Amino acid sequence: MSPLTTRAAQALARLRETRPWVHCLTNTVVQKFTADGLSALGAIPSMTDSPDEVAAFASRADALLVNLGTLDEGLRRVIAMAVDVASGQGKPIVLDPVFCDVSEVRLAFAKAIVGRRGIVLRANAAEIAAIGGTGDAPVIRTGAVDLVQAGGRRATIGNGHPWMAVVVGTGCLSGAVVAAFNAVEDDPLVAGIAGLATLGVAAEMAAIGCTGPGTFGVRLLDALHAVSPADIETRARIEDLS
Amino acid sequence: MSPLTTRAAQALARLRETRPWVHCLTNTVVQKFTADGLSALGAIPSMTDSPDEVAAFASRADALLVNLGTLDEGLRRVIAMAVDVASGQGKPIVLDPVFCDVSEVRLAFAKAIVGRRGIVLRANAAEIAAIGGTGDAPVIRTGAVDLVQAGGRRATIGNGHPWMAVVVGTGCLSGAVVAAFNAVEDDPLVAGIAGLATLGVAAEMAAIGCTGPGTFGVRLLDALHAVSPADIETRARIEDLS
Amino acid sequence: MSPLTTRAAQALARLRETRPWVHCLTNTVVQKFTADGLSALGAIPSMTDSPDEVAAFASRADALLVNLGTLDEGLRRVIAMAVDVASGQGKPIVLDPVFCDVSEVRLAFAKAIVGRRGIVLRANAAEIAAIGGTGDAPVIRTGAVDLVQAGGRRATIGNGHPWMAVVVGTGCLSGAVVAAFNAVEDDPLVAGIAGLATLGVAAEMAAIGCTGPGTFGVRLLDALHAVSPADIETRARIEDLS
Repeated sequence: MSPLTTRAAQALARLRETRPWVHCLTNTVVQKFTADGLSALGAIPSMTDSPDEVAAFASRADALLVNLGTLDEGLRRVIAMAVDVASGQGKPIVLDPVFCDVSEVRLAFAKAIVGRRGIVLRANAAEIAAIGGTGDAPVIRTGAVDLVQAGGRRATIGNGHPWMAVVVGTGCLSGAVVAAFNAVEDDPLVAGIAGLATLGVAAEMAAIGCTGPGTFGVRLLDALHAVSPADIETRARIEDLS
Repeated sequence: MSPLTTRAAQALARLRETRPWVHCLTNTVVQKFTADGLSALGAIPSMTDSPDEVAAFASRADALLVNLGTLDEGLRRVIAMAVDVASGQGKPIVLDPVFCDVSEVRLAFAKAIVGRRGIVLRANAAEIAAIGGTGDAPVIRTGAVDLVQAGGRRATIGNGHPWMAVVVGTGCLSGAVVAAFNAVEDDPLVAGIAGLATLGVAAEMAAIGCTGPGTFGVRLLDALHAVSPADIETRARIEDLS
Repeated sequence: MSPLTTRAAQALARLRETRPWVHCLTNTVVQKFTADGLSALGAIPSMTDSPDEVAAFASRADALLVNLGTLDEGLRRVIAMAVDVASGQGKPIVLDPVFCDVSEVRLAFAKAIVGRRGIVLRANAAEIAAIGGTGDAPVIRTGAVDLVQAGGRRATIGNGHPWMAVVVGTGCLSGAVVAAFNAVEDDPLVAGIAGLATLGVAAEMAAIGCTGPGTFGVRLLDALHAVSPADIETRARIEDLS
């Protein structure tokens, strides 16, 4: 067992004890699924995107999720306010630039944010390629095998299930889960690994005896609640490439 | 069995027969769960928050739910329009001032509405304390034990399940359910008791053999559809404190 | 077996192979359920309603869904932009004028769109009556028995389950499913029949052994993933009235 696996399991135990508050600026499609996933895991979600309120919520939360899944002018302003507050306080901010390879508006916005203090980028290969340079920001590349890259180190996570790609919002949820782990773990390499391994192991548990993607999405919430540090130690497939 | 229990069971029977229409101005996170819960119970939900339409919907509905879960300037204007219409017609309006103890914008708005004709306040202890005086408005305080207070009378409801706190939106749903009961029951004490007992008994039914919060949230909808007046009479734990 | 049944089964096989992209401008209540339903079926959903992005998404998608379930001024402008793009490219556009019999704003807007090139109307009897003349647009009237009318031909589909009326969003989902079939089938009569038969047969499969509307909604997604062209051939109840 890799030492990273032990540290990921410890991070999950710590998350369950401390119950970090994650404020989520995410698209309306996945709000409930993201909030339910964080809550099942043991974190506390909040979701308001009102310009009158977002600074107060970002300031009190332990981590921020910024998901560009639907991005109009109002939301861009709100995200900028929240990032200013959280970045200024040195809090972790997970940026999920959904479809920035398709939308120029999202790409320009993602590029402007990615260099800010505290940012962790969570994206797929096409989105990362579109953004280009990510500077010193930790990068979490999700795909068939997930890759985490931070502070000159790299590791892969081989857990998960094909049904994750059929249920809308599991990618967005992974960003929220990683944000929760960054709130309880200072090393972004360990936080990224812990988040993806926890979600991936939960997905494997959820898929057992499953009859389709509807049931899978529901059981994934059950499994996020049930998955234990011991499950991470025995089931996580983490490889340290450093 | 308390006479209040019988009256709560009768209110459920009446709701199933008359199928009240509840217009919901609620946050985007819980819209589908709230609408599904009302529909499973036997009520008819509508959810539009367009300023061009809200007066027409509020005017035709039998009750109004106002949930402050995401509150920007546009939504404040829309809520004010809907409250004017429903209050003017003497219809019940359930106010759920989510997190008004955290957000000054929500607190000021909640205080301005709570005195209006027809308002029933549904909140937790911290939110009620933040609002302070509630005047003559019936108050429904949810928590480990729920308390309903109206017209100088008080009663507690001891039903429910801990998983309600893990599934995002059960608190918001309780406001919608209470609104539906106020549409078919003139006494707000009975309506509040009936709403909380119905949801709490359904939660206990849903939890049997459940494997986690995902499954629980789905089965709660099944149970809201299945729960009968006879279930209320045998399972509700209502105590009249008057 | 009607030749239309065989053609509907073939359309489902084609949808699974080609995975059409359906851009959905729909109300926030049903966004996740609609996207999950399309994804389970084998199509690719996108949902953004940002004015900066909608033209790019409508232009790249294979079909457009326009659902008037919540209609404010901003959304009307966004829909107009998307319809201009999709109609100009000759792509299919399914219009679902939810509650246009209740809201004058929606009715005026629906009337203005229904004559555009590429429009397929999906509505219930009251909504169709409110709109009045639908010109040459194919019409899909959902109800206890569904009716499809296109190019002077008519057919009915007798599949489905009463629990569809209890789960919020199945009507909206049917519009999205019909849009996906129109992207892979040039004859709107066949596309409409295939969409309604696929959803109706899936609903019958989902209802077997079901304990309530919550479970039914989840299993409907499982069934949309599992339903096969062979299931359509053996279970669809299609009657050609031409």
